[in-house]
Amino acid sequence: MKKRKYAISPKRDEDYPEWYQEVIKAADLAENSPVRGCMVIKPWGFAIWENIKAELDKRFKETGHENAYFPIFIPKSFLEKEAEHVEGFAKECAVVTHHRLEKGKNGGLVPAGELEEPLVVRPTSETIIGAMFAKWVQSYRDLPLLINQWANIVRWEMRTRMFLRTTEFLWQEGHTAHATEKEAIEETHKMLNVYADFMQNNMAMPVIKGRKTEGEKFPGAEVTYSVEAMMQDRKALQAGTSHYLGKNFAKASDIKFLDSDEKLKYAYTTSWGVSTRLIGGLIMVHSDDDGLVLPPKLSPLHIVILPITPKDKKKILEYCDKIKEKLSKISYNNSTLKVHVDKSEISGGRKKWDWIKKGVPIRLEIGPREMEKDEISLSRRDQSPYENTTMKSAELIKNAKKILKEIQKSLYDNALKLLEDNTKEINSKEEFYDFFTPENPEKPEIHGGFAVTYFNSDEEVESKIREDLNVSIRCIPLDAENNKKEGKCIFTGKKTTERVIFGKAY
Amino acid sequence: MKKRKYAISPKRDEDYPEWYQEVIKAADLAENSPVRGCMVIKPWGFAIWENIKAELDKRFKETGHENAYFPIFIPKSFLEKEAEHVEGFAKECAVVTHHRLEKGKNGGLVPAGELEEPLVVRPTSETIIGAMFAKWVQSYRDLPLLINQWANIVRWEMRTRMFLRTTEFLWQEGHTAHATEKEAIEETHKMLNVYADFMQNNMAMPVIKGRKTEGEKFPGAEVTYSVEAMMQDRKALQAGTSHYLGKNFAKASDIKFLDSDEKLKYAYTTSWGVSTRLIGGLIMVHSDDDGLVLPPKLSPLHIVILPITPKDKKKILEYCDKIKEKLSKISYNNSTLKVHVDKSEISGGRKKWDWIKKGVPIRLEIGPREMEKDEISLSRRDQSPYENTTMKSAELIKNAKKILKEIQKSLYDNALKLLEDNTKEINSKEEFYDFFTPENPEKPEIHGGFAVTYFNSDEEVESKIREDLNVSIRCIPLDAENNKKEGKCIFTGKKTTERVIFGKAY
Repeated sequence: MKKRKYAISPKRDEDYPEWYQEVIKAADLAENSPVRGCMVIKPWGFAIWENIKAELDKRFKETGHENAYFPIFIPKSFLEKEAEHVEGFAKECAVVTHHRLEKGKNGGLVPAGELEEPLVVRPTSETIIGAMFAKWVQSYRDLPLLINQWANIVRWEMRTRMFLRTTEFLWQEGHTAHATEKEAIEETHKMLNVYADFMQNNMAMPVIKGRKTEGEKFPGAEVTYSVEAMMQDRKALQAGTSHYLGKNFAKASDIKFLDSDEKLKYAYTTSWGVSTRLIGGLIMVHSDDDGLVLPPKLSPLHIVILPITPKDKKKILEYCDKIKEKLSKISYNNSTLKVHVDKSEISGGRKKWDWIKKGVPIRLEIGPREMEKDEISLSRRDQSPYENTTMKSAELIKNAKKILKEIQKSLYDNALKLLEDNTKEINSKEEFYDFFTPENPEKPEIHGGFAVTYFNSDEEVESKIREDLNVSIRCIPLDAENNKKEGKCIFTGKKTTERVIFGKAY
Repeated sequence: MKKRKYAISPKRDEDYPEWYQEVIKAADLAENSPVRGCMVIKPWGFAIWENIKAELDKRFKETGHENAYFPIFIPKSFLEKEAEHVEGFAKECAVVTHHRLEKGKNGGLVPAGELEEPLVVRPTSETIIGAMFAKWVQSYRDLPLLINQWANIVRWEMRTRMFLRTTEFLWQEGHTAHATEKEAIEETHKMLNVYADFMQNNMAMPVIKGRKTEGEKFPGAEVTYSVEAMMQDRKALQAGTSHYLGKNFAKASDIKFLDSDEKLKYAYTTSWGVSTRLIGGLIMVHSDDDGLVLPPKLSPLHIVILPITPKDKKKILEYCDKIKEKLSKISYNNSTLKVHVDKSEISGGRKKWDWIKKGVPIRLEIGPREMEKDEISLSRRDQSPYENTTMKSAELIKNAKKILKEIQKSLYDNALKLLEDNTKEINSKEEFYDFFTPENPEKPEIHGGFAVTYFNSDEEVESKIREDLNVSIRCIPLDAENNKKEGKCIFTGKKTTERVIFGKAY
């Protein structure tokens, strides 16, 4: 194929971070707001979030969780109840200190009505939910308590990037309490698996399940598990986390219950969450140099119909509406196919490229010639924008679901290939440094990917690696943890069964 | 029927405000949190909100609106852009002044990192959304812009009451921009009608559509319309509002567009919202002295099956599951019937009363006797808890939807009767004072209801009435406004076509 122009400039291999911003802009997903670090999620971006929410919510309910809503404000003293927790969040929280504005000396409004105790806008809700759990849990009969909340969260980030790291973001946080350690650990794994399954099947994004090291775990957790995905620049995205909190928060919040043996015991709690960051992952895993590419199972639209209307406009639009009507009746992914006929008055070329940039899986072009033969011209977003197939409309109706399934699969297969091609067993320190040194220092994003190594955790070595290469331990993969093979740590030479994945991280 | 005990104490006619709190507690809808004025919405209450949301969201999308998400923080200077608006909200807003906590002199954490400009936690989003609209609207082709946001809101209320008035609440806020005044006014009415239709058809709550007086309108609006409902204590609940904002916010935020005549013009904007307050209305319109009564179209569960299990436990539970399975396949209200078999180990009596207090529309009791004859014993929440009907299970399957429809209708009819019985044309000042004077001063809630009168607005008279009787103008009903009959103002004796509804308000 001869060289062609691409819709997004710069391309991925020219400037990956800038390409990311341009894809968001071209697809009209979101934009920065006048409020520092806060983004506005625009309709196309929000519709994707609604689909993510609906699908996850279903899975949470199927696994016995109920939704509830807790206050956005956390009294300062609550945050202080768990030492590691407050340490982790105090540096980056929005603090409400006053409850009104009033005229100041120079005429402008100034904060007034100072609060006795400052309130923090929730950076996470363990402590406020813990305070309620302490009231709700009295007996072993009240357990397990399985709650989820969809909410907005504020963490005062200094460097923000749309979807990936913003001062305010949307998320879900599951919070559960259990009578036994075993059950709480099972819950932690169950929800990690729910996340992994959703990401693989719906986002078409393969993930590695693993345990976080001490330095990377959630402040206050006993163990943090995460799912890590590889972006197209070979960096890791922590896509979701599931924390086993032991008795730490139960002790901080006094969540105690009378067990069946008549003894008063602390509950074991868990928490787990994913956020609008997932949309950042979705973009970076699948999109190409023509813009966003959406997996059919999460796309707000499955098929867009582009009428080519030189003369016989009315007839063609009617024909398109008829095709839409038939397609819209086809059941797909717990609902029906979402189909749109673009009747806007802009030029055919721009129209086509607008939908390419928005990532809609299937485009149909229908002009007088197609209509005459009862045909359509079909293009797939996972193929070149210049490719198309002509088929009878009946054939399309028959095959639409199959084609979407193929697209979903091809996106997953590509992402899996990316992950597999760029994950490497590393057996020496030298090889390790080579792997993570960019070929071209001006393009630091082009480096090895994920390095799987034997490593017998030494914090000094870890921080040296971070300093030298900006690389850190993403996780201790569960596969490796369950399969205790022995090897030699590539940095210390000591024998160990600990295997980890190193990578650069978002 | 002989005198019986009721599940809720006090009863409505003993202490209405206290009854309201007890219904919430008995149904486990919500409870107060440790954060001043903020409530926790518990799973049963939140499931009702999810149903309200889903139904309204569908209607907003059907009328062409798209969801988006805007920052929770509003810079102080944005709020100040519209003079009336800031006046209205400055007195009750949570102000963020710092972005971290750090160790203070006495060891505790103190706010640090003072912001250059304080941020207000959104009390409503006209100004921040307006700032974005100003970027998005350039040409008449960009209009109308029809956006909705589901979000949490903070208004620092001094006296709070669960669902009705809380510091933080959940709501939706529609924000639209139009090229012409006519179109914007049409939108304002369209959304008022969407609310009225939802409330009447889904909440089974009749409402009066009307215009607010100058003193009661939204700060910054040209005109505010509202839907007002009558609670069982005959007080009015403002259940939703729709504001025509004219060019006020367009000027404040600089929302300008190049019209087809090549002239630069300000857009006309609207905003409209309903909140978790609706759940307060739902409770106060339908519930009785046995607890919550839910209209089937909004109930998280339609049918609860209570197995009576003296011996043959396994068989009965299987039989119940079979009935549930059949019922769950019946389509209802855009989904299917939600049915639950209560297999918990608590006594039959308590089980039954728990579900009565939660307001589930249909209860089925099934014991060995019923199972033998393939029958069920059915009780309806809109009838006495001691009434029941026995029918063959096949008859139930056939009639379940019809019975739910009857319940939905009977709740609406009762609420309409309440409204009609307690709305009175008042023709003199004396009659007016009589109408609103409680028979028993210890029970101020027992008074007339809604008074419809001719009134040629005089603010002095209005405030005297408010002072004397705690009564205010709820609205100028649209019916009256469209049908300009003349009469005499009952306070001034002057001729006028202005007719208003006075009432005590939540």
